[in-house]
Amino acid sequence: MHSPEELRALAEEALERLDLWPELHGQATSVRYSLEVGGKRVRPVIALAVGEALGAPVAQVMPAALAIELVHTFSLVHDDLPAMDDDEERRGQPSTWKKFGEGVGVLAGDALLAEAVRLAARYESSAVARELAEATLGMIGGQYLDTMVEGYDLAAVHRLKTGRLFYASVTMALWAAELPEAEQAPWRAFAEELGLLFQIVDDILDEDGYVREHGTEGARRYADEAAERARARLGEVDADITVLRDIVDSLAVRTA
Amino acid sequence: MHSPEELRALAEEALERLDLWPELHGQATSVRYSLEVGGKRVRPVIALAVGEALGAPVAQVMPAALAIELVHTFSLVHDDLPAMDDDEERRGQPSTWKKFGEGVGVLAGDALLAEAVRLAARYESSAVARELAEATLGMIGGQYLDTMVEGYDLAAVHRLKTGRLFYASVTMALWAAELPEAEQAPWRAFAEELGLLFQIVDDILDEDGYVREHGTEGARRYADEAAERARARLGEVDADITVLRDIVDSLAVRTA
Repeated sequence: MHSPEELRALAEEALERLDLWPELHGQATSVRYSLEVGGKRVRPVIALAVGEALGAPVAQVMPAALAIELVHTFSLVHDDLPAMDDDEERRGQPSTWKKFGEGVGVLAGDALLAEAVRLAARYESSAVARELAEATLGMIGGQYLDTMVEGYDLAAVHRLKTGRLFYASVTMALWAAELPEAEQAPWRAFAEELGLLFQIVDDILDEDGYVREHGTEGARRYADEAAERARARLGEVDADITVLRDIVDSLAVRTA
Repeated sequence: MHSPEELRALAEEALERLDLWPELHGQATSVRYSLEVGGKRVRPVIALAVGEALGAPVAQVMPAALAIELVHTFSLVHDDLPAMDDDEERRGQPSTWKKFGEGVGVLAGDALLAEAVRLAARYESSAVARELAEATLGMIGGQYLDTMVEGYDLAAVHRLKTGRLFYASVTMALWAAELPEAEQAPWRAFAEELGLLFQIVDDILDEDGYVREHGTEGARRYADEAAERARARLGEVDADITVLRDIVDSLAVRTA
């Protein structure tokens, strides 16, 4: 089994080698750019770790892992648009629309989503693509509530905006690893806690959301409880969970 | 077998009844609006007609037919954005961004694409979703060439921007009707001609593209030749092509 750092390196390498659809023509440049700006690749690492826990080789789960990273990148590219958050920078670089123009920025996000579907559709069964579509719709709904609706329940917004893709990092990997649906329930419960944990720690780092509602210590307590529940859910699955436990532990104490 | 008009009514009815993913919350309103503004529904009619020609019931092909209409609508919603064509009207109604604001317009297009994937993923095999993703990427590439690249070959742009979705209307229906890949070749050749025919007639109606390059009579000749080739390809398939011949004939002489 690979460590989280090794899985991250494998995901990074696979992203670099990813063949984009030739009919994109020049539009491929901005898609490539938005993927290369980087990030922690935490979603594909989770997907690959779930796959390995279930005994599936990295290569078998990689298309699902890359698909979820492309959906995440699509959401950032569209969120950065002037019509949305109007961000000119992303991780210290010009955001995609700032670099290539607003029209190309819209198309780059569209293309990332479509490429994600193409990756998900490499599996014979449509289950991976279905999980991807549902998570994407949930994320879009969360973005709508966050930006267009005043005072909507913060926890619900977070569960959609951030939690849905974390959830799908796990569930897409379950299908990619060909785990029968009847055995997926504890994994899905784990997936819920993982997204929540990530979001609460994000709020602690940004002094936002949970911190504003419950104070830093309160938020920290919520994070610890979510981590504890995630570990408990992992205890219920029939798989080698060593690396996934490490991921939960490091998500709980991360400082960036 | 149903006539094209009957198929259109069935598609319209299914679109009205279409359940959107509940996690979209208020974002569903703009998605619904953009679908209700209407149109000729020519792509789903083609998909359903291909299915019936192969003996597949309408209900079996409907998810694929609706998926292609949703991708078409997604492309219109994003094309209308200020960053793209900046159109405030669509079929005599305010365009989606004009009605709901630019941010919601971006999200509405995103949601339409994701809902299309969810429809395509209702089939057990991922083949329908794969055709959808490839066509969407080709269409995006065509949009890029059309708006960002000066003087790119017009026929190539049209083949991507318009032709790719027509092509997918046929090929997604082939998978939905469970036609083995080995028998799909003449259908795929037919699909190519159908997209070309639609585009040339569009140019004749708009006095654009082919008309500017070849004059009205030249464009009309090209359209007639494309229609003739489409009929010839239909002659090669093992299916009841009566309704599809009617569709080719009416696409060739349409005046709107």
